[in-house]
Amino acid sequence: MNRQNNSVGIVETKTVRVVDAQSPLTLDCGRELSPIDVSYETYGRMNESGDNVVYICHALTGNAHVAGYNSPDDKKPGWWDDFVGPGKYIDTDKYFVVCSNFLGGCSGTTGPTSINPSNGEPYALNFPVYTIGDMVRVQKLFLEKIGVNHLLAVIGGSMGGMHALKWAIEYPDFMDAAVVVASTSRLSPQAIAFDAVGRNAILADRDFQDGKYTNDKGPERGLGIARMIGHITYLSEKGMREKFGRELRTAQDYTYDFNPEFSVETYLNHQGQSFVERFDANCYLYITKAMDYFDLGREYGSLEAAFKKIKAKLLIVSFSSDWLFTPEQSVDMVNAVVANNKSVSYCNIESPYGHDAFLLEPDTLGPLIGGFLASSFESHVSPFDPESIDYADLQESAKRVRVDYEIIEDVIEPGSRVLDAGCGNGDLLYRLSRDKNASVEGIEVRQDLVIKCISKGIPVIHKDIENGLDCYRDKSFDYGVLSQTVQTLKEPEYVFRELLRVAKRVIVSFPNFAYWKVRLSLMLKGQAPVTPELPFEWYNSPNIHFLSIKDFEQFCSKIGVVIEKKVPLRGSSPSTIKPAPNFFAPQAIYLVRKD
Amino acid sequence: MNRQNNSVGIVETKTVRVVDAQSPLTLDCGRELSPIDVSYETYGRMNESGDNVVYICHALTGNAHVAGYNSPDDKKPGWWDDFVGPGKYIDTDKYFVVCSNFLGGCSGTTGPTSINPSNGEPYALNFPVYTIGDMVRVQKLFLEKIGVNHLLAVIGGSMGGMHALKWAIEYPDFMDAAVVVASTSRLSPQAIAFDAVGRNAILADRDFQDGKYTNDKGPERGLGIARMIGHITYLSEKGMREKFGRELRTAQDYTYDFNPEFSVETYLNHQGQSFVERFDANCYLYITKAMDYFDLGREYGSLEAAFKKIKAKLLIVSFSSDWLFTPEQSVDMVNAVVANNKSVSYCNIESPYGHDAFLLEPDTLGPLIGGFLASSFESHVSPFDPESIDYADLQESAKRVRVDYEIIEDVIEPGSRVLDAGCGNGDLLYRLSRDKNASVEGIEVRQDLVIKCISKGIPVIHKDIENGLDCYRDKSFDYGVLSQTVQTLKEPEYVFRELLRVAKRVIVSFPNFAYWKVRLSLMLKGQAPVTPELPFEWYNSPNIHFLSIKDFEQFCSKIGVVIEKKVPLRGSSPSTIKPAPNFFAPQAIYLVRKD
Repeated sequence: MNRQNNSVGIVETKTVRVVDAQSPLTLDCGRELSPIDVSYETYGRMNESGDNVVYICHALTGNAHVAGYNSPDDKKPGWWDDFVGPGKYIDTDKYFVVCSNFLGGCSGTTGPTSINPSNGEPYALNFPVYTIGDMVRVQKLFLEKIGVNHLLAVIGGSMGGMHALKWAIEYPDFMDAAVVVASTSRLSPQAIAFDAVGRNAILADRDFQDGKYTNDKGPERGLGIARMIGHITYLSEKGMREKFGRELRTAQDYTYDFNPEFSVETYLNHQGQSFVERFDANCYLYITKAMDYFDLGREYGSLEAAFKKIKAKLLIVSFSSDWLFTPEQSVDMVNAVVANNKSVSYCNIESPYGHDAFLLEPDTLGPLIGGFLASSFESHVSPFDPESIDYADLQESAKRVRVDYEIIEDVIEPGSRVLDAGCGNGDLLYRLSRDKNASVEGIEVRQDLVIKCISKGIPVIHKDIENGLDCYRDKSFDYGVLSQTVQTLKEPEYVFRELLRVAKRVIVSFPNFAYWKVRLSLMLKGQAPVTPELPFEWYNSPNIHFLSIKDFEQFCSKIGVVIEKKVPLRGSSPSTIKPAPNFFAPQAIYLVRKD
Repeated sequence: MNRQNNSVGIVETKTVRVVDAQSPLTLDCGRELSPIDVSYETYGRMNESGDNVVYICHALTGNAHVAGYNSPDDKKPGWWDDFVGPGKYIDTDKYFVVCSNFLGGCSGTTGPTSINPSNGEPYALNFPVYTIGDMVRVQKLFLEKIGVNHLLAVIGGSMGGMHALKWAIEYPDFMDAAVVVASTSRLSPQAIAFDAVGRNAILADRDFQDGKYTNDKGPERGLGIARMIGHITYLSEKGMREKFGRELRTAQDYTYDFNPEFSVETYLNHQGQSFVERFDANCYLYITKAMDYFDLGREYGSLEAAFKKIKAKLLIVSFSSDWLFTPEQSVDMVNAVVANNKSVSYCNIESPYGHDAFLLEPDTLGPLIGGFLASSFESHVSPFDPESIDYADLQESAKRVRVDYEIIEDVIEPGSRVLDAGCGNGDLLYRLSRDKNASVEGIEVRQDLVIKCISKGIPVIHKDIENGLDCYRDKSFDYGVLSQTVQTLKEPEYVFRELLRVAKRVIVSFPNFAYWKVRLSLMLKGQAPVTPELPFEWYNSPNIHFLSIKDFEQFCSKIGVVIEKKVPLRGSSPSTIKPAPNFFAPQAIYLVRKD
C-alpha cells in the first residue's frame, strides 16, 4: 500500500461559532469571553454508530490543516499528511478525522488578533490569558457543535499532547483512547526559560508598542528571535550536526564581520523571517504562557491524582533525542498511570530528529499509532494470527520456548492480572488474554517488539527491567512472569525481588546448569558447556548468570520465597521429570511467592 | 588543610603595553592593530629556574582577576578562588600563577571599548574581528614582556580551554603541560546557533546604533537577552530543575499576565540585567564570533594534524551534564591525540552543574588538576607509596591479585609501551614505569580511580573498554594487559580482539572455570561453584562469562592467536602448575599475540 500518495485531496477550512455573544465562556483566569469561533477541517466520514471519530490536536504553531491541500495551487500538504489519509496510518477510509485551531490561535479561531466586540479593535493584549484547560473546554464545545459526542481517540503531539492529556482527564467518558506524543505533564524550568527569553525578545522590541502594532510595522525582529530560539529546541544537537555541521553558507572563507555566514545561522534567520509572515507576536506570547502554566501535578494535587481520572486506553510516545519534552518526562507520566494500577502503552522511539520527530518519523510513529488505533477501534485485541509468532525473534534471543507458554497457561487462573517482564512480541500475553481472559501487561526493551505488542492491543511499557519496577505498587499483579530471562540479567537478584514485590506469584523458567550433560562436559572435558538449552560459547553467550535447580531453590529458601509448583522439563517436551531433576532436567519452571 | 580560607589576599590588576604604536600586530583577518595593552594579575613568585609558572586562561565573560580581592571592600573573590591560593590545588606557595584579560575583552586589555588612536573615539565596530589565535599571540607577547619564557602549564576552562589548546599547538616547546577543561576543538552548530541568536538580539536592538551607543543608552535589552540565552546553555536541565523547579517567585497563584513569575524567569532576568552593567555589547559580538570561528580541524587540515604538533603533557576534562561543550567533543580531542600515538589523560567528571561545572566542582576538578600539575612539576611520576594501594578497591572488584603484577612484570621487556585495559588505581602501570622504564597508559571506567592514576602521573583515559578501542591505531603498544577482567566483560570476544589489534602482545589473566574444585562442586553438588577465585553466588557475581584454560586455548586457536607463554597458577602463590593445569590450576596468565 502506498501510504505517501493517498491524499485526502482538496479540503476546506470551515469556521463555526461555538460560544455566542449572549452566553460567554468563563476562563480559568476568571475573565469571560464571547463570541468564540473555531476554524476546523474534517476528513473521512462519521459512521452510523459514531464510534469512528479521531480528534487531532495541533501544536504551538500548527493549525487545523492536518492533511490534503486547501487549494490546487498549494505547494505543501497539511502538517501531518504523512499520517492522515485514505489507507494511511490514521485511515480516513475508516475513521472520521477532525482537527480544529485552538482557542487563542491565529489561524481562524478567536484569539488576540480577533476583533474585540467591545471596541471594534483587535484584542491584542486585552485578550484574556487562557490555559490549556480553556482551550480543551472550547474544543469540547466545538465537537458537540458539529455533532460529535464520542471520540474513538484524541491524539496530540507536543502542545497537542497536553490537550490530549487534559481531554482524557476532564472528559474520561468522552473517548476510548488517547495518544500523547512528544509531550509532557508540565514544562521543565529549562523550557520555561526558553519561552521566557522568547517573550522577552518580543516585549523588548520597540515596534511591539504594547501589543498595538499594525500589520505593516510589528515586532518582527523580536518574534523572529523568539522563533529562532524555539527552533533550536525543536532540533537535536546531533540532528543539527548532521543537517548543517559547521558548513559556511556561501563564502569559502570566514568573512570577519557579523553577517550570518554559517549555514545554521542563515537557516535560523530564514526560519525567523518566514515565521513572522505567518504568525502573530501577541499570539506567541499567549500560547507560550499557556504552555508554561500547564502543570497537571499542580492542578490536580499530584500527577497520580490527575491520571486517576483517566478511563481511556493510553498510548504515550517519546523520542530519544527530544530534549524539550524529554523521554524522562514521558516516563514520569507512565509511572503516574501505573501508580493508579492502570495499564498504559509507552514507546520511546529512537530518533535523531529531537522534538520535531513527531512530524518526521512516520515509519515508526505511524505503525505505532495506526496499530494502537486499530486495536482500540476493534474494542478488543486483534484476532490471533499464529503466523505473527516470529520464531526468528525467539531463536535469536533464545529466551522463549513454546513449551513454556503451555505450562504457564496451565498455571495461571482465569481472569488474573499478569505482568510479563520481558514480553518479547507479546504472544504469551496475547494467549493469556484470549484463552484465560487475563488482564495483561508487558515490559519490553526492544522498540520493534514494543510496536508489535501495541499493534496487537497488548499494553506494554518500553523499558529495561534491569532498571527495576519502581513504578508498580506492591502486589499489583496476580502473576509476574520471568520466562527464560533470569540468567540473562545483570542483576538477577534485584529483578527477581522486584517482581516478587509487584506480583503475588511469580513464574520463573530457566535452563538448569546442573543438568547432567552440563556437569559431564565440565567434569570430563573441562569446558564451559554447550547444550541445546545453553547453545552458546563462553565468549558470546547472552546467559551471564548460571544457576541450577538446586541453586534456585536454595536462593528461594534464603530470601523467604515459597515454591508452590515446580516443573522440571525436558528440552522441548512438556513432560515433566520426576527423579533427581537437578541431574536430569535441562530446564525448569517454578511458580513461587514471597512468604 | 583548609583550602577555602587560604586567600592570596589583596591583589592589584596591572596593565602593560605589549604591542606599541610603531610596530602593529597583524591579525588573522589581515588587519593591523596597535597599540595593545594587556591587563593581568599574578600570584606567588617565580622560582629561580623559572619552571614554576602556571598560566590561566579565562572564559567568555571572565577577566584577569582569578583569585583574592582587589580591595578590602570586595564582596566576592576572583572567579577561581576555590582553586588558586596558598595551599590550594593550584598552590601559590609553589607556583607562580598568571592570568591576563584576553585581546578584545572589556576588562582592561585593548578591545572594542578602547580608544581608536586614529580618531580618538572608541573602536566599537571598527575594531578588527579577532580570533582565538590572535588572542593567544597577544598572550605570548604579554608573557614574554613580563619575563616568562616557559610555562609549567597552561590551564583554561571553556573558551580558556580553546586558548590552552591553541597554545599547546602553536608553542609546543613553551610549556610542559596543558589542561583543557569543559572545552572543545570547535563549536557545534547548536552552540553557533545560540551565539547567532544572541548576536541577533544585540544587533536588532534599536539602541545598538551600529555599535556607536553611549554608556547612557546602549542595547541593554539585546545584550540582556543574549546573556539569558547564554546562561541557559551554561546550566543543565537537571541543575535547573534542582535549583528552581517550577517555583513561582512571589505570588501563590498564577498572575495571568506577561510579567516574569517563575523563579527561573526572574533569575534569568536578573542575570541579563546585571550582565549589562559589567559587560560591553560590542565585545560580546566579537568574542562570540571568535568562538564560532574556532575550528582546529579546519585550521590545521584535521584535528589529528593539529594535535600532532603538541608536545605538552595533556589533561582533558569534561563534565557529564555539559551540553554546550559536550563530553563527546572532549572524547573527539582525546581520540585525535591518541591517533598520533601520544598519551593523554582524560576524565569526564560526573556533575549536575552543566557547563558551569568548571567553576563549581573544586572537590573533583581540584585534585585532578592539582595532582596533574604536581606530577608535571616533578617532571616524573610521583614517588611510589606502597600505602597508596587500596586493597579495599582490589577486593571489592575482585579484579586484581598481586601475584598477577609480579608475573606480568616478569614478562614485559624493559622500555616497552604498555596499555592496561581496566587499570584500576594504576599500581601495575606505576610499577612498570618505575621498574621497567615502560611507557605506560591506562583505561579505567571509575572516576575516582582515574583521578588517582592522574595524580600519580599515569596517563589514563576515562572510558569503558566495552565500548572498544577505536581511537588506538593497530599495534600502537608492545603489550596490552587484561588482568582478571575478561570474565567480567559483556562482550569478552570483542574487547579481546580489540586489544589484540592495538597491542603486539596481550597479557590475559582469568580464573579457570575447570579447576577441579569447580568441577567437583558442579558434578557432585549440582551447584554453581563458589571458590576463593570465584567467590560469588550465582546471583551477585561480577563474573558473567565463565571460561576454562581449555576454553581459552581453543578460542585462541580458533581466532588465530598464538600462545607465547602460559602460566597456570595456584591461588595466591606465584608458583606455576605443570601437570594437567586445566584441572589443577585455579587461575592462569597468558602472553599471546595475533598470528
